[in-house]
Amino acid sequence: MNVFFFIANAVPETCPADLGEKCGEDGEWEGEFFPGIPEIKYEGPSSKKPLAYKWYNAEEVILGKKMKDWLRFSVAFWHTFRGTGGDPFGAPTKSWPWEDGTNSIDMAKRRMRANFEFLNKLGVDRWCFHDRDIAPDGKTLEETNSNLDEVVALAKELQGDKIRPLWGTAQLFMHPRYMHGAATSSELGVYAYAAAQVKKAMEVTHYLGGENYVFWGGREGYQTLLNTDMERELDHLASFLEAAVAYKKKIGFNGTLLIEPKPQEPTKHQYDWDAATTLNFLRKYGLLGEFKLNIECNHATLSGHSCHHDIETARINGLLGNIDANTGDPQVGWDTDQFMTDIGEATMVMLSVIKNGGLAPGGFNFDAKLRRESTDVEDLFISHIGGMDTLARGLRNAAKLIEDGSLAELVRKRYSSFDTELGHQIEAGKADFEMLEKIAMEWGEPKVASAKQELAEMIFQSAL
Amino acid sequence: MNVFFFIANAVPETCPADLGEKCGEDGEWEGEFFPGIPEIKYEGPSSKKPLAYKWYNAEEVILGKKMKDWLRFSVAFWHTFRGTGGDPFGAPTKSWPWEDGTNSIDMAKRRMRANFEFLNKLGVDRWCFHDRDIAPDGKTLEETNSNLDEVVALAKELQGDKIRPLWGTAQLFMHPRYMHGAATSSELGVYAYAAAQVKKAMEVTHYLGGENYVFWGGREGYQTLLNTDMERELDHLASFLEAAVAYKKKIGFNGTLLIEPKPQEPTKHQYDWDAATTLNFLRKYGLLGEFKLNIECNHATLSGHSCHHDIETARINGLLGNIDANTGDPQVGWDTDQFMTDIGEATMVMLSVIKNGGLAPGGFNFDAKLRRESTDVEDLFISHIGGMDTLARGLRNAAKLIEDGSLAELVRKRYSSFDTELGHQIEAGKADFEMLEKIAMEWGEPKVASAKQELAEMIFQSAL
Amino acid sequence: MNVFFFIANAVPETCPADLGEKCGEDGEWEGEFFPGIPEIKYEGPSSKKPLAYKWYNAEEVILGKKMKDWLRFSVAFWHTFRGTGGDPFGAPTKSWPWEDGTNSIDMAKRRMRANFEFLNKLGVDRWCFHDRDIAPDGKTLEETNSNLDEVVALAKELQGDKIRPLWGTAQLFMHPRYMHGAATSSELGVYAYAAAQVKKAMEVTHYLGGENYVFWGGREGYQTLLNTDMERELDHLASFLEAAVAYKKKIGFNGTLLIEPKPQEPTKHQYDWDAATTLNFLRKYGLLGEFKLNIECNHATLSGHSCHHDIETARINGLLGNIDANTGDPQVGWDTDQFMTDIGEATMVMLSVIKNGGLAPGGFNFDAKLRRESTDVEDLFISHIGGMDTLARGLRNAAKLIEDGSLAELVRKRYSSFDTELGHQIEAGKADFEMLEKIAMEWGEPKVASAKQELAEMIFQSAL
Amino acid sequence: MNVFFFIANAVPETCPADLGEKCGEDGEWEGEFFPGIPEIKYEGPSSKKPLAYKWYNAEEVILGKKMKDWLRFSVAFWHTFRGTGGDPFGAPTKSWPWEDGTNSIDMAKRRMRANFEFLNKLGVDRWCFHDRDIAPDGKTLEETNSNLDEVVALAKELQGDKIRPLWGTAQLFMHPRYMHGAATSSELGVYAYAAAQVKKAMEVTHYLGGENYVFWGGREGYQTLLNTDMERELDHLASFLEAAVAYKKKIGFNGTLLIEPKPQEPTKHQYDWDAATTLNFLRKYGLLGEFKLNIECNHATLSGHSCHHDIETARINGLLGNIDANTGDPQVGWDTDQFMTDIGEATMVMLSVIKNGGLAPGGFNFDAKLRRESTDVEDLFISHIGGMDTLARGLRNAAKLIEDGSLAELVRKRYSSFDTELGHQIEAGKADFEMLEKIAMEWGEPKVASAKQELAEMIFQSAL
Repeated sequence: MNVFFFIANAVPETCPADLGEKCGEDGEWEGEFFPGIPEIKYEGPSSKKPLAYKWYNAEEVILGKKMKDWLRFSVAFWHTFRGTGGDPFGAPTKSWPWEDGTNSIDMAKRRMRANFEFLNKLGVDRWCFHDRDIAPDGKTLEETNSNLDEVVALAKELQGDKIRPLWGTAQLFMHPRYMHGAATSSELGVYAYAAAQVKKAMEVTHYLGGENYVFWGGREGYQTLLNTDMERELDHLASFLEAAVAYKKKIGFNGTLLIEPKPQEPTKHQYDWDAATTLNFLRKYGLLGEFKLNIECNHATLSGHSCHHDIETARINGLLGNIDANTGDPQVGWDTDQFMTDIGEATMVMLSVIKNGGLAPGGFNFDAKLRRESTDVEDLFISHIGGMDTLARGLRNAAKLIEDGSLAELVRKRYSSFDTELGHQIEAGKADFEMLEKIAMEWGEPKVASAKQELAEMIFQSAL
Repeated sequence: MNVFFFIANAVPETCPADLGEKCGEDGEWEGEFFPGIPEIKYEGPSSKKPLAYKWYNAEEVILGKKMKDWLRFSVAFWHTFRGTGGDPFGAPTKSWPWEDGTNSIDMAKRRMRANFEFLNKLGVDRWCFHDRDIAPDGKTLEETNSNLDEVVALAKELQGDKIRPLWGTAQLFMHPRYMHGAATSSELGVYAYAAAQVKKAMEVTHYLGGENYVFWGGREGYQTLLNTDMERELDHLASFLEAAVAYKKKIGFNGTLLIEPKPQEPTKHQYDWDAATTLNFLRKYGLLGEFKLNIECNHATLSGHSCHHDIETARINGLLGNIDANTGDPQVGWDTDQFMTDIGEATMVMLSVIKNGGLAPGGFNFDAKLRRESTDVEDLFISHIGGMDTLARGLRNAAKLIEDGSLAELVRKRYSSFDTELGHQIEAGKADFEMLEKIAMEWGEPKVASAKQELAEMIFQSAL
Repeated sequence: MNVFFFIANAVPETCPADLGEKCGEDGEWEGEFFPGIPEIKYEGPSSKKPLAYKWYNAEEVILGKKMKDWLRFSVAFWHTFRGTGGDPFGAPTKSWPWEDGTNSIDMAKRRMRANFEFLNKLGVDRWCFHDRDIAPDGKTLEETNSNLDEVVALAKELQGDKIRPLWGTAQLFMHPRYMHGAATSSELGVYAYAAAQVKKAMEVTHYLGGENYVFWGGREGYQTLLNTDMERELDHLASFLEAAVAYKKKIGFNGTLLIEPKPQEPTKHQYDWDAATTLNFLRKYGLLGEFKLNIECNHATLSGHSCHHDIETARINGLLGNIDANTGDPQVGWDTDQFMTDIGEATMVMLSVIKNGGLAPGGFNFDAKLRRESTDVEDLFISHIGGMDTLARGLRNAAKLIEDGSLAELVRKRYSSFDTELGHQIEAGKADFEMLEKIAMEWGEPKVASAKQELAEMIFQSAL
Repeated sequence: MNVFFFIANAVPETCPADLGEKCGEDGEWEGEFFPGIPEIKYEGPSSKKPLAYKWYNAEEVILGKKMKDWLRFSVAFWHTFRGTGGDPFGAPTKSWPWEDGTNSIDMAKRRMRANFEFLNKLGVDRWCFHDRDIAPDGKTLEETNSNLDEVVALAKELQGDKIRPLWGTAQLFMHPRYMHGAATSSELGVYAYAAAQVKKAMEVTHYLGGENYVFWGGREGYQTLLNTDMERELDHLASFLEAAVAYKKKIGFNGTLLIEPKPQEPTKHQYDWDAATTLNFLRKYGLLGEFKLNIECNHATLSGHSCHHDIETARINGLLGNIDANTGDPQVGWDTDQFMTDIGEATMVMLSVIKNGGLAPGGFNFDAKLRRESTDVEDLFISHIGGMDTLARGLRNAAKLIEDGSLAELVRKRYSSFDTELGHQIEAGKADFEMLEKIAMEWGEPKVASAKQELAEMIFQSAL
C-alpha cells in the first residue's frame, strides 16, 4: 500500500506528566522517574527476575579485565528518550509519564534528568547523543546553539565524576534542509550549515568529556544516479571531514573521530556503504590516520555481511573503534535496530573485541530501540538488560573458547605450511613467479587438508 | 544508526497558504490550486514537454478498446495530498501552498478541492482514499464519522457525473490502537473499533459510487512468533472478513471487495504475504467467491516475485481485480512506492491485463509517491504523467506483441504435445500411472526441445 | 565471472579403494568402511570428544517421550553417500576410500553397505533416498528399474528389523529430460516418463517399509514467464499428483505423501514456493486430505520466512508432516544445506514440534551436506553428531520453556480479552458490524497493552 | 531438498559428431560448424529475423566513433564452448554436434576452430578464455602447459590479423586443489601452483596479443570466519599480485591487469566483494597504479548495487577497465549470467562508458550463457545477437541523451551553488569550520531546491 506520514491526524493525545505531585511549580520533576524500578543487580544465570542481570557482573574479572571495562556500555539517548514508536505506517505509541507533549527546554531538561536516573539504575557509565536529541531547535542557529548550551550545562552537572559521553554527534539527516545530504548536499548553504552544526556538536562533546565523536552520513548518498554527480559529492565529503579534523585539533579535542558505515536507508545508496568502502574513501583522500570505524551490526547485515565480518574488516585494518550493538532481522530488508539477543552472534563479536584488546576509548553503544509495541516503562529496562546480558554472555563464552584453545589451534594448524622458510619468503614478497613455478613443478600435485568447518562449529557451539 | 521520529523537533514551519489574494475570508481557497499547470494533453512521442502525454491518448482505440478503458487510472489521495515527504530518518519536506498547517475540516475540504482540480487537469476519472486521509479524527468515533460525512458530502458534489472512487478503504494501521493489528489485534476492543471503522468506510465508499473496496492489512501480522498466537489471529481475520461480506450485502454495495497482499513492512510478517498466500487464506475460510486481489507491484517484488508473476497468479485463479501501479527499487528491501518507469515491466503487466480482458471494475491506482526530495508542485504532475505514459507505452507494446503473434505462437508450440488425444486424457485426469508407465516404456527416451528463452526475449524486446 | 561445468577437465582422479586388503576379489568390500570410528555414545555436555553426543541421549525421556521418538532422525543417502563436493564453480572434492570411480551396481551395493554401517554407528534408525541415488541408470527404463530392484533387495536385507526409510522419492530434476520440469514439462513424453518413475519409486519405498513418500518439484517451475503457460503447467501438476494418490491406494501403501516447498533454485520460480503457496495449490485442486508438507529450513529462509514460520504455517493448517533439518546462511541467496548449529533456531523448531505432538510418521531428515572443503571421512560423522546434538539441545530447551510456563502464559494473557462471552461470539462468527460498532462507540478508545517482545525474548534466551 | 552432483548417473550420452561426412579421418572437422548460419548482418530495427542485427551496425559512427570501437565486443570461450548446461541440480543438457565426448587435444582444437567460425560469423574481433577452457589438463603441470601451447599455437594461427583476445585468465577455482583458495589457500603448495599457472596464462595471453589479463578470485574468500585467518590470507593475496605485476613487466606484457569483483558464490564471502572493496585492497597494498577493474553487472547486483553504480565507482576512481556484460535476475540470489536484455540498464551503462571515453584497451566481454534449457545451436547466435543489440541500442539512446543535453543540464544546475568563489574555496579545502559557521549564521536557513528525480526519469525514458 503506502508509506506516508500525516502526523497530526494520528498522533495520540500526548501523555501529560499526570503524576501531579511529582511536578514542581516550575515544571521541574521531583522524585524518581522510574519509581518502581530498583538498581539493577547481578543475580546470576538462575535468576528468573526480569529486572536483574543474569550474566553481566560489572566488577567480575574475565581474561584479566573487569567486565565493565571490556564492555564499556552506553545508552543511546535518541532511542531511549526520543524514540516515539512511530514508523512509516504508524504514529507514535510511547507516552512516557514525564513527557508533557512539548519540545521545550524545560522538557529537554526533565528528559535529561530521566536519562541520568536511567543510567544510574542500570549501572551504566556512558551515554551517546545527537545535538538535536537533547535540546530543541531555535528560530536561528544562534538560538539553537544557546538552547543546546543550556541543556548541556545541566548534563555536565548530572554527569558528576563518573558518567561521560561515549560519543556525541550532529543530527544531519532529519531536517528537510538535509534532504539532499549535508556535506554532500547539492546546495552550498547546506554544506556550510552542516559545518556549523558539526563544529558546535564537537565543542559540546568535548566540553562534556566525550571520548569519541561520530559521523553517520544518513543522507550522504543518492536516490538515483540520474540526478547525481557522485564524484563531486565525494570530493565535498572529503573536504568536510578534513575541516572537521582541523577543527578537532584546533580545540584540543583528543577523542577519536569515528565513521559509521551503513549501506542504504534512508538513501538508496549511502557513500559509507560498509567498512571496506569507508576504508577506501579514507585512503583515497588521505584521511586514514584521523578516523576509526563505528561498526553497527544491523548495518553490516544490511550490506550483505555478517556483523562479525565487518568488525573483523575494521580490526585487521587497525580501525575498529566502536560497536553499535544491535541486531537486525535476517528476513527483513531495513534497519530494525533490535537489541541483540543471539548468543552465538555475541560470542563472535566478543572474540573479535578480545583480539582487538578491547574497544577503549570506544565501547558498545546500544543503538537499539524498543519495538513499537513495547509501551511499558519497564520495557526500557528489560530491553537494555537483555542486550547487556547477551554481550556479557558472549564475553564469557569467548573467554571459554580462548582458554580452551582448540579453536585457535585448529586455525593455526591450517596455515602451518606458511610457518616455514619458504612461507616467510612469500609473506615478505620475495618469492617470484619463476621460483614458485619451479617449486610447483618439483612438488607435483599439492596435498590439501580438510577445512574442518563442522568441527570448528562444534567447538564453537560447545562454548555457548 | 537509528530510526526515530521526534516530529516537533524537525518539522519545518508549515507553509501557510500565503497567496493571500486567493483565500476568501472563511478560509475557502479561491481560484486555481495549480495556476501554472494546464490541462494535460496528448502530444505524441516526439514532444519534449514535461507537462504533456507522449504515449497516453485517452480516446485512442487499442485492440478494440479505448486506452482510458484499458487503463482506468486512479489518483491515490494519500500519497498525492497527504504525503509529507517524511521518512524514518527525516521530517516532512513538502509545503504545498494550499496547506495551512492544520488538520481542520476546512483544510480537509480545501485539499479535496485541490484533488478534483488535479484529477481534472490530468484527465483522470478515478480516485482512491482511506477514511482518515480525507477527514480529521474527532474526539470520539461519532465525531470522527461526522467529520468524514461532511467532507464526503463535498467530495460527492465535486465528483459530478464523471468522477468516481476506484476504491475506498479504512486506515487501520496508523493509529497506535492498531499497533497489534486491527482484525488480528490481541485486544477485542480494537477488533470492534476496526469493525466500526470498516463499516463506515464501506458506507462512504458506497455513497460516493465507489467501484471497489480494499483491505490492506498493514498491521495484520506479527513482529515475533514468540508472543503471537498466529492461528487464533488468522481465525479472527476470517471472522472479520465474513462480517464485512455480510455487511456489504446488507447495504446493497455491489462493488468488489479486494485484498491487497504485502509480505512485510511495517510488520516482520504480514498474513497476506503474496497472492498465493492470500488465496490459501480465502480458500481455507470459504471466502473465495467474495474477494478479488489488488496486486501491487512493489509488494510483489518485496515478496520475492516479479510483479508479472503475482499478477499472473491472481489472473489464473480468476481473481485479478485491481493493480496498484508502482515499482520498487531492485536493490532496496523496503516499499519505495515509486512511479513505474520501466517499459519492459509495464509491457508484461499489460500483457496480463489484456489476457484478463481488462481490469474493470478495477483499474490502475497510482499507489506511488513523489520522492522525498521532489518538492515542486509541478513534480506531482510530472510523476503522474510519467506513470501514465509508462503504462500507456506498455499497452501499445503489448498490443504490438499480440498483433504480431509470434510470442504466443512460440508458447503454443512448446506445449503442443498435449494438444493430442493422450494429452487431453491426461488433462482430464484419466491417465493413470500404469498406463503412463506403459507409454514411457514404449516410447523410450523422450525428445525435449529447446525452450528458446533468448528468442522469446528477443521478440519481446523488439516490441519495446 | 561464470558458472560452468566442464567435468572431465577438472575431476580429480577418482580415488580407488586402495585399502587392498579390505576388498574381496569380486569387488565386495570386507570389514568396516569406517574402521577408526566407534559407535557414537552419549557422554553429556562436558565431553570434549568430537565423536560423542553431548546432548542427544536416545533413550532419555523428555516430556513423556524418548528423545529418539521426538526426533526420529534420518540420514539422507544423497548428501552423505553421493555428495561429491562439486559446486557450480568447482569439481568434486570427496574421495571416499570405498568409491572406485564407477557407477556400477557393485559400487551401488558397496555404498549401500557403507550407509548401513554409518546408520548403525550413529545409532540412527531411518534413512531417505532418491531412486537414482542408490542404483545406476540402465539403457532403458526397464533396465534401470531392474538395477534398482537389485540394490533395493540388498537394502531390505541390510535394514533388518530396526531400520526403515523415513521416506523415498524419485529424482526428477537431474536428468536433462527433466530440464523443463517433470509433471510440468512442456513435453508429454516427459510427463509419462516421470509418472513411470514415481510409480516405481513408490513401489520400492513401500517394499522397504518406508513411512512417507516425498515430492520435491525442483524443476516444476519456470525460468521466464515469457515462454511459459503457468496455468496449464499447474493443471498438469495436479493431474499428476491425483494419479499418484490413486496409485498409492491401489498398491496399499499407507505412508504419508509429502510435498516439499522450495521457492526457487534451480528454477527462477518453483510452483511449491512455500507452505502457504503449496496449501493453496492443494486446496484448489481438492488434494488437501491426501498430502502433508515436508518443511525444509533452508527453503523457508530462501522464501523470505523464518524456518519457524513455515513450520507453524504447516502446523496450524494440520499439515506438518516432516522436517528437513538443515540451515542456510543468512547472507547467502542460495541453498547451502548446512547442518543446523543454531541453538535458538533449534529451540523454536522443537517448540512447534512439541505442539504438534511430534512428527511421526514423519521425522527429521538431515538434508544437509558437508562443506565442499570438508574432506575427511570423520567429517561425515562430526557433521551429523553436530546436527543431532543441536536439535537435541533444542528439545531440552523447549521442554524447559514449556515446564517453566511463563512464555506460554505471556501469550495466553495477551489474547485474554477474547476469552470472554463477546470474544467467543466473535470467534463463532456471530458478531456483525452493527453490533461491533455499537460496542466500539460505547467503550470509547480501547486500551492496548504492551506486546512485551523484549520480555518474551529474555524468557526465551534464559532457556538456552 | 539438495544440491548434489553425481555426474556419471545423469550425464546424457555424449553426442558424437555424427555428421560423418564432415569429419576427416584424423578427427579434423571439415567444413562449417554452423552450416545453416549466415554471417550476421545489420538490417535495422524493423527486421524480424532472429539472425540479424537490428541495432548494432559495426561501422556506423556514433558520437564520433564507430560502434565497434565503442563496444569492442568479446565472446567468452567458456560459456559458449565449454558451457554444458549443468547446474547444481542437473546434468549437462548441451550436445553440440562437434563435441565427441572427450577432453582430448584434438577435441580442444576442433572446438577452437568452431570458436573462430563463430567469431567470424558474428563479426566480433575479440575473445576471452581461461587456460583450462581451451586445453586439457595433463598428468603433470609440464604436460598441462604443453597441451596449452599446442592449442594456443592453433589459436594464434586462426586469429589471423584481425582477431585478438580481449583478455586471458587462469582458472583457479575448479580444481579441488583450489578448494581453499589459490593465492589465499591455507596450503603453501597451492599458492605456488597457482603462481605457476598464472605465470603460464600470462605468457600465453601475451603471445596471442591479448590486450588485458584478468584476475577473478572465485575461491579467494572464506566459507566461515571460524576457521579462517582473514588478515593473513589478504596479505598472501597482495604478495601474489605483486609478483604478478613484477612478472608482467619482466616479460614485457603491456596489457592491463584487471581485477573482477564479486561478492560471493562460490564462497560465502569473496575478498574482492565489489569495486570499492577492491579499491581499498589495492590502495592498502600499494597496488593502485598496476590494476584496473573489470566490472560484471551480475556481480554488482549480487553485491547490492546497481550495475551502473559499480561502473561509476570504478570510473570516478579512474579504474574502469572492462565490463563483463551480463545481467542477473532481480529476484534471484545467485549468479545467473544472463545476456543483457534491459534497454534502460544498457543505456545507463553506455552513459558511463561514454563519459569514460570508451573502454579501450578493455571492452565488453559477454560473460553470459545460454539458459540450460536452450539447446539449439542457433540459440548460441540468438543470445549473442540479443546481447549485442541491447548494448548497441543503449549506445544509441545514450548518444540521444547526450545530444539532447537536458539531463546533463539538470545535473549541472543542481550543483551550481558550488560554481562560485566560495564553492571553489570549499572544493580546494580552504573553507574551515569557523568561516563556514559565520556564513551559515549570516545566510540563515538555506533554500533547498527540488531534486527533480521524476523529471530526470522522464527525460531518461524519452530516449529509450
